[in-house]
Amino acid sequence: MTDKSRPLILVTNDDGITAPGIRNLISVMTQIGEVVVVAPDGPQSGKGHAITIESTLRCDQIHVDDGPQKEFSCSGTPVDCVKLAVNVVLDRKPDLIVSGINHGSNSSINVIYSGTMSAAVEGALEGIPSIGFSLLDYSWDADFSPVHEYVHSIATQALEKGIPRGTCLNVNFPRPKNGPIKGVRVCRQAEANWVEEFDSRTDPRGRKYYWLTGKFENYDNGEDTDEWALANGYVSIVPVQYDVTAHHAIGSINQWDFKG
Amino acid sequence: MTDKSRPLILVTNDDGITAPGIRNLISVMTQIGEVVVVAPDGPQSGKGHAITIESTLRCDQIHVDDGPQKEFSCSGTPVDCVKLAVNVVLDRKPDLIVSGINHGSNSSINVIYSGTMSAAVEGALEGIPSIGFSLLDYSWDADFSPVHEYVHSIATQALEKGIPRGTCLNVNFPRPKNGPIKGVRVCRQAEANWVEEFDSRTDPRGRKYYWLTGKFENYDNGEDTDEWALANGYVSIVPVQYDVTAHHAIGSINQWDFKG
Repeated sequence: MTDKSRPLILVTNDDGITAPGIRNLISVMTQIGEVVVVAPDGPQSGKGHAITIESTLRCDQIHVDDGPQKEFSCSGTPVDCVKLAVNVVLDRKPDLIVSGINHGSNSSINVIYSGTMSAAVEGALEGIPSIGFSLLDYSWDADFSPVHEYVHSIATQALEKGIPRGTCLNVNFPRPKNGPIKGVRVCRQAEANWVEEFDSRTDPRGRKYYWLTGKFENYDNGEDTDEWALANGYVSIVPVQYDVTAHHAIGSINQWDFKG
Repeated sequence: MTDKSRPLILVTNDDGITAPGIRNLISVMTQIGEVVVVAPDGPQSGKGHAITIESTLRCDQIHVDDGPQKEFSCSGTPVDCVKLAVNVVLDRKPDLIVSGINHGSNSSINVIYSGTMSAAVEGALEGIPSIGFSLLDYSWDADFSPVHEYVHSIATQALEKGIPRGTCLNVNFPRPKNGPIKGVRVCRQAEANWVEEFDSRTDPRGRKYYWLTGKFENYDNGEDTDEWALANGYVSIVPVQYDVTAHHAIGSINQWDFKG
């Protein structure tokens, strides 16, 4: 049973339940409310909005540190974690879902590949205010302390003011080594993409295999984008929606001459 | 080397390279152009926009039937297949990417869980006209023949007219048993969701595990939605975009009082 006098906060991520990023997020959230963690038992980066339908799921209570939170380690994807939390683990609907803090950027097009952000999108689908947090530093020993006050402030305001229906927040923090954070910008997603360069190798039996690799290319010079904010020392916040209809394109497709 | 006098069409799916749905799609596409198939070696349903970054990928040429197409079986997700096709397999940029025909609906919110549709979204990201096709019949021996003429017509027009930049098409066909197709509707994605009901079981060693299951709930009465079109015997076409910014929500989040 959870203490109903305090907000109930569900914490998840895609780097796995022992990643320093989620441990930092848990430490901030326990200052704000009652915390339950349901997170993957290992790395789930790049899993997008994947769900587990061809195999079974495990979800077991574990003890990681001496904090006041309850924790559950799950065999599935970040989206599975949110579904299991809301439908199996929690005794009431959470007041807030936070995902991260991701080790590495989820700005721009990374949002659609990201397990961290897909967990937040799933929360929005369930009608729960949801936020994904990411730091532009891939290293395991990244310094998350400079972003704690921003995480606290953004989470507190989401609880107080809510998040517009059908949306969640994609929050990215600039690389700490680039100097102190200048402030916060609410942005649109930059038009950028990955240029793939598959690393082709040959296994000991002579068969070819590949590693996916690539280079991020930003084609967008807009100063209202997340990429601009992050390159200029600001925290970026992009409100993200799960309605992916390209409403502006309906008219032109309607001009087509359909058979039948 | 591919014949450059005909359009080059990449075919993929998420049910696996031997599924009847993709075999039907290949048979229609070989009437239109030069076809290369790069598809998963097994089921990849519900994989959303997942990519494979923690493990290696295989992509080997195989021979499935006596058609004129070239075929490659890939160990990864549908999005991996598109990336491998464009960057490793094909000798030029394809003129069209088609994904499916999926066994089962990808209408409404299913679009974000769907490997079939994520392959089409990835194609749009690469700047290639891309279409995902799905039939509202989950069975392996579903009858795809009534939809061939629509698949042919939609693909031909995408080649002739292009698809608006930054978008792809999500095409769903109504259940064939419900009678002849009445026509085509260009729609928005209905506001609907899955209500999860995890099936909790106990393994032979006494440990709990779960199967994800659930019920689709449509909350949207709009006659301009894909759910309405399909329920009324029409083919639904939703133009889908990868810019997930909730532009309408930027203003209200900008009213927040950010720390720092």
